[in-house]
Amino acid sequence: MNITCNKSKLLNSIGISLKAVPNKSTMRILGFIAIIAEDDVIKLISNNLELGIETALTGDIMEPGKICVDAKMFSEIVRKLPNDDINMYVGSDEDSYMSTDEGEKIRKMSITSGKAKFEIPVLPTDEFVFLPNINGSDTVVISQFDLKSIINQTEFSISDNENTKIMTGELFEIDDNSLRMVALDGNRIAIRKITLDNSYPHKKVIIPGKTLREISKILSDDNEKMVDINFSENHVTFKFDDTIVLSRLIDGNYYDVDKMLTDDYRIKITINKQEIYETIDRSMLLRKDSDKKPIIFDIKDNVINFNMKTNIGSMNEDIEVKKEGDDLKIGFNPKFMIDAMKNIGDEEVDMYFINAKSPCFIRDTDKSYIYLILPINF
Amino acid sequence: MNITCNKSKLLNSIGISLKAVPNKSTMRILGFIAIIAEDDVIKLISNNLELGIETALTGDIMEPGKICVDAKMFSEIVRKLPNDDINMYVGSDEDSYMSTDEGEKIRKMSITSGKAKFEIPVLPTDEFVFLPNINGSDTVVISQFDLKSIINQTEFSISDNENTKIMTGELFEIDDNSLRMVALDGNRIAIRKITLDNSYPHKKVIIPGKTLREISKILSDDNEKMVDINFSENHVTFKFDDTIVLSRLIDGNYYDVDKMLTDDYRIKITINKQEIYETIDRSMLLRKDSDKKPIIFDIKDNVINFNMKTNIGSMNEDIEVKKEGDDLKIGFNPKFMIDAMKNIGDEEVDMYFINAKSPCFIRDTDKSYIYLILPINF
Repeated sequence: MNITCNKSKLLNSIGISLKAVPNKSTMRILGFIAIIAEDDVIKLISNNLELGIETALTGDIMEPGKICVDAKMFSEIVRKLPNDDINMYVGSDEDSYMSTDEGEKIRKMSITSGKAKFEIPVLPTDEFVFLPNINGSDTVVISQFDLKSIINQTEFSISDNENTKIMTGELFEIDDNSLRMVALDGNRIAIRKITLDNSYPHKKVIIPGKTLREISKILSDDNEKMVDINFSENHVTFKFDDTIVLSRLIDGNYYDVDKMLTDDYRIKITINKQEIYETIDRSMLLRKDSDKKPIIFDIKDNVINFNMKTNIGSMNEDIEVKKEGDDLKIGFNPKFMIDAMKNIGDEEVDMYFINAKSPCFIRDTDKSYIYLILPINF
Repeated sequence: MNITCNKSKLLNSIGISLKAVPNKSTMRILGFIAIIAEDDVIKLISNNLELGIETALTGDIMEPGKICVDAKMFSEIVRKLPNDDINMYVGSDEDSYMSTDEGEKIRKMSITSGKAKFEIPVLPTDEFVFLPNINGSDTVVISQFDLKSIINQTEFSISDNENTKIMTGELFEIDDNSLRMVALDGNRIAIRKITLDNSYPHKKVIIPGKTLREISKILSDDNEKMVDINFSENHVTFKFDDTIVLSRLIDGNYYDVDKMLTDDYRIKITINKQEIYETIDRSMLLRKDSDKKPIIFDIKDNVINFNMKTNIGSMNEDIEVKKEGDDLKIGFNPKFMIDAMKNIGDEEVDMYFINAKSPCFIRDTDKSYIYLILPINF
């Protein structure tokens, strides 16, 4: 293999590949990236067995070839190289081996840029776990911006408890021209809905949370650039720019979320989002010790008095609101409130309550978002 | 106590105080800041027993008083407060106590800003360890910029081995109108010399490295702002802006550094500083495993070939130099070279060698800096 490519392009592709490289693994090969240079394109492939990424870049291929390199080492060396052009060479003669301190002979790749030359050990690609060849159907098209947003606005409610596998994923549901994503963790539910440009057959799958988090880091904020989402029985594929992300789906039936929702309420509050966000954010300062006290919403007339008392100290703060219905005193985990408020773009938010033991709903009128949060007894 | 002051001024003063608050301590009171509001000035005092800081700010003192607050909690609360004005109130009646979960009654301070009100526990100042009253003599004046620079250009060579106490400090030596600071750790020496505006009696003390590191973080980059440095038998005091930093000195005689220096050399190299810095910096990528291989300088004719081989991989790179004297092959800890090069402002640096077993000297012609680095056998 003998190829030359541009440093910043290569770094960008390596950055994408790293999203599917685990930090630690008992399988050494998972820490490697496969470099495949053939048919005028250089592909980098990484695979952590749940999530696989293939990303392509252009370059000069003087001699095609394929090889695996340690992902982190390769990334760090390329980042520090002095020149815009980077040459990667793997020979096939006697000189193409390096010896370890123990005298073992290992195949090497030379990385040259300007006057700097590095040599690192490589592995043959026959040890690499390539991505399965999936022929999915039903391609759904969505803008990168929309997909990135809807993931970020729900993923914080995904449970990280591996004992309830389904909760570690998000429901991804297509109904005609609408996409709904749902995440829940036993104490709260986050639901976002957006309208797509086209209509599609009904589709309901569970995508692993880890996949969604990694994809959202690669997606651009560009509303003009699209993602093609493609499903097969056990996999979902996201194609965008020069990248293909392939992920396993989580097997099983997602919770019947609609049964947990209700339009009934006895108290409706309209509050300035920034004000409530900052007040609850401040209260978190008092919550550092192990005793996780709730923040109390003391709703009286047209004011909510927020207060919290822990072993660290106490706080209280009033915010004026618009109110329909009775007075109420109700407690919440401030972290859950913060997570929801942070992801609402509206200047004013509506909060719906029934009583101190029933969940609070935060939602807009067309239900493009619904955040349900269970109260805490106090 | 009832005082009001400006949020950003208060935050700035707290930031300075925190430099003398230990992260952990068996003495709880060391984690506290004393607030002393009297005689029209608000003082914050912190003291970790080796280093003490007193910093003053202006504010409205409606009722003078003094109290101790948990430094980290106070800092975090003030940072998050909504308004420019911050009121701190400690009452003296029944209402000025808060009760813990265990029913214990503790004096409290109310911190109010806009509609937000926090209450945190406080301690009386009679538990606080105030700074000793030092009447030193021989005030040395130096600009904040110069003091900050000379500390930063030497402190990396201070040893952190507490078994050789003297090595954990820096020599601070005044000779007429010249200040020399020296740090060494057994493998290298860093020496910087600057000229002062005035002449002073001879002075030779050892200042703890921790003190110097914390002071350099508080000092500004302003060449017009001065620091008054004042010595007593066991302490040194730095006065600048509204702040006094007091530190213990390290007892003992510093090493006779001049005996370790020599002007003799057999090989002199003049090299571009940025080039050698970047080359050696890249070599560090191969040094992550436990075996700490040296970087080899293979000096031949007018080229240095830098090379390193570890279990991770190998690198080599040529840099053209000006050379006087023989060829030489010599190995160094790349980290020590990097530390010195990073702190030299010159575009070209002179390096002096005798042989592969003798130290390398990096120095300018008037010896405003001398970095001595011992070689490594390879």
